[in-house]
Amino acid sequence: MDYNRIFTQAIDRLHGEGRYRVFIDILRNKGMFPNARCFAGHNGPKPITVWCSNDYLSMGQHPKVIAAMEEALHDVGAGAGGTRNIGGNTHYHVDLEAELADLHGKEAALLFTSGYVSNEATLSTLAKILPGCVIFSDELNHASMIAGIRNSGCEKRVFRHNDLAHLEELLAAEAPDTPKLIAFESVYSMDADISPIAAICDLADKYGALTYLDEVHAVGMYGPRGGGISEREGVAHRLTVIEGTLGKAFGVMGGYIAADQVIVDVIRSYAPGFIFTTSLSPVLVAGVLASVRHLKESSEEREGQQAAATMLKAMFAGAGLPVMNSTTHIVPLMVGDPVEAKRISDILLAEYGVYVQPINYPTVPRGTERLRFTPGPTHTPEMMRELTDALVEIWGRLELRLAA
Amino acid sequence: MDYNRIFTQAIDRLHGEGRYRVFIDILRNKGMFPNARCFAGHNGPKPITVWCSNDYLSMGQHPKVIAAMEEALHDVGAGAGGTRNIGGNTHYHVDLEAELADLHGKEAALLFTSGYVSNEATLSTLAKILPGCVIFSDELNHASMIAGIRNSGCEKRVFRHNDLAHLEELLAAEAPDTPKLIAFESVYSMDADISPIAAICDLADKYGALTYLDEVHAVGMYGPRGGGISEREGVAHRLTVIEGTLGKAFGVMGGYIAADQVIVDVIRSYAPGFIFTTSLSPVLVAGVLASVRHLKESSEEREGQQAAATMLKAMFAGAGLPVMNSTTHIVPLMVGDPVEAKRISDILLAEYGVYVQPINYPTVPRGTERLRFTPGPTHTPEMMRELTDALVEIWGRLELRLAA
Ligand SMILES: Cc1ncc(COP(=O)(O)O)c(C=O)c1O
Ligand SMILES: Cc1ncc(COP(=O)(O)O)c(C=O)c1O
Repeated sequence: MDYNRIFTQAIDRLHGEGRYRVFIDILRNKGMFPNARCFAGHNGPKPITVWCSNDYLSMGQHPKVIAAMEEALHDVGAGAGGTRNIGGNTHYHVDLEAELADLHGKEAALLFTSGYVSNEATLSTLAKILPGCVIFSDELNHASMIAGIRNSGCEKRVFRHNDLAHLEELLAAEAPDTPKLIAFESVYSMDADISPIAAICDLADKYGALTYLDEVHAVGMYGPRGGGISEREGVAHRLTVIEGTLGKAFGVMGGYIAADQVIVDVIRSYAPGFIFTTSLSPVLVAGVLASVRHLKESSEEREGQQAAATMLKAMFAGAGLPVMNSTTHIVPLMVGDPVEAKRISDILLAEYGVYVQPINYPTVPRGTERLRFTPGPTHTPEMMRELTDALVEIWGRLELRLAA
Repeated sequence: MDYNRIFTQAIDRLHGEGRYRVFIDILRNKGMFPNARCFAGHNGPKPITVWCSNDYLSMGQHPKVIAAMEEALHDVGAGAGGTRNIGGNTHYHVDLEAELADLHGKEAALLFTSGYVSNEATLSTLAKILPGCVIFSDELNHASMIAGIRNSGCEKRVFRHNDLAHLEELLAAEAPDTPKLIAFESVYSMDADISPIAAICDLADKYGALTYLDEVHAVGMYGPRGGGISEREGVAHRLTVIEGTLGKAFGVMGGYIAADQVIVDVIRSYAPGFIFTTSLSPVLVAGVLASVRHLKESSEEREGQQAAATMLKAMFAGAGLPVMNSTTHIVPLMVGDPVEAKRISDILLAEYGVYVQPINYPTVPRGTERLRFTPGPTHTPEMMRELTDALVEIWGRLELRLAA
């Protein structure tokens, strides 16, 4: 067996399609975000401005978060030292689960090592527990949900993105006594649009389906306490499971679900991805606790972020750049080709000290490659002006298509 | 659909079998491990001694680790803010991967959010890339390897635990040109035994198979630089992939693989569990860097741990307790019943301030429920004496079976 040939061919395919990924080597500067240092090319640290972080509200450098992590580090040490069941359950974990359950108005919550794992572990376990379950999945669902659905081994029906009529058609085609689960997101981060949560819950009620909502890009960001789009729209109580991450707006790392006690208990007791792994470091958990508590009380960061996003969208549109229709805090520019997207990104980094990652397949469908900007409360109008000017220059230089 | 009934029944089954899990709520005291505080029963913090941590060498409280994490926290902040590809690749990640590749004498290494994810993501992706691959898996492999193997969708052959003849029989039954992968562990943590790595590599050579070794319970613990059993036995270069955790002997959190550059590149480029998730917090990565570097140069912790394990095994055996045959740093006592195992653990905690978790199905096969002690360099002979006396008293009180 020539294993090496097979592996080399797999890599060559990526080069051939122009989507071999080179990771940009950076260090952020705490207290000065979006400022960072770049090590790319190994010619020493060079200052850059980061435009593609998912630490949307700069909570990863918030003084309360840093202080809480420092305190935990000195109080209990670096790691949990075990799984949740075997030595790795700390008081921080218990407190954070209570805080997250409260955030979503649910009976209970459960922590995972990441949002990816929370989706994979919960969807695969929930569906496996329900005999003959059929899962209805939005076509643009995140890879972690797709993994959970596939690993459940259940039947899956994919509905067109945010298409209620198509979802209803698929629901109606199943027998009434078949267990059903509708899995979707609130904010689709690559397209920057929002799902019709209440209407999906109406369909769930009509056809007796459970609902699973990924609020990864919305928790901390929307709703008066940062409970996500489901809080903003007053529908959190209608959802069976709400899932979120601790690594984006909350600024740290980890994932969770919030749901009825019995459902949390089922996942806690049966999901291998929850059971058989060292639990989140108490240092991280302490940081998240501070972050969630702060964002429950403060809307300043959310408002600053929304204002920045609105301003950047207006600047891009005003300059004729092909900004995608976004009803959220994310500002994607359509490019439509992986090689061009990477070229723009390379020029921005090398010539303008601007870091924005090209988004290629498999993160988005082929032919819809894009640049995805995430302005935050610490990006100034001047930075936005400079960014817009740079893009206009590059668009001209590369003779790229402007907005229609 | 009465979903609630199905969920409630799933939980009732666990109660019925005496294996419903209640997480003990604790906080460790940094600098004083195995000392900790227990919140169980909510009657306030109470001092306990932890006997079941996988922070085997107390590196989670090592001054170098704490200092490195504190520095990173103040330099770059709490979280990575993105996936490895989109904004979440820091210089710490790059440095740690180089350090881990060196630890195992491999060309490259790759970080994951946990050891669980490294096993699941690597095994499922590696096997999927190889057309028609058949995976040979030790029957006692960890749940995370089983998940990766199942999710690869490949054919699987399970060989009896550490049984070379059975493995060879299964290998010989496949066509010579079928891609083959042997997946196994070095230290089996629940049985406390070690696999015949060199002999398995001989079989791999003979039948043209790749090898995947989980060294989760051995990295940091064995070998002159903490490279695991494969380092101790001088066979690291014969293994295709070595996998480890950063959450046990290294004391923090995370997982990794080390292998040839092309294999690391394949996993980096194709594994959803690597690609679509926020990368490890730089604070954790900085702590691990300090830990790995320290344990490459210092054998003091390893020797202290081995001495403690040898002493505890001798004390248990001397007292007639049914200590399982262990050639490793782990000291399991066989109980053989989930209810008895939990009862012993409850008495130890309530009456003796000793915390050791009962190990039940699905972590070990039914009927082999046990208590699993992990003495470390900071457990004193006096603590061991007290523990042994307590166990002898409880064994008598509950009229449990002593060693033959
Ligand atoms: C929609 C969605 N769900 C889940 C995840 C995974 O969350 P985490 O980064 O915490 O693993 C992501 C991105 O990483 C995401 O975009
Ligand atoms: C053999 C083995 N592999 C992998 C893992 C998973 O590692 P981690 O805790 O880093 O997820 C564990 C335990 O947790 C284990 O015992």
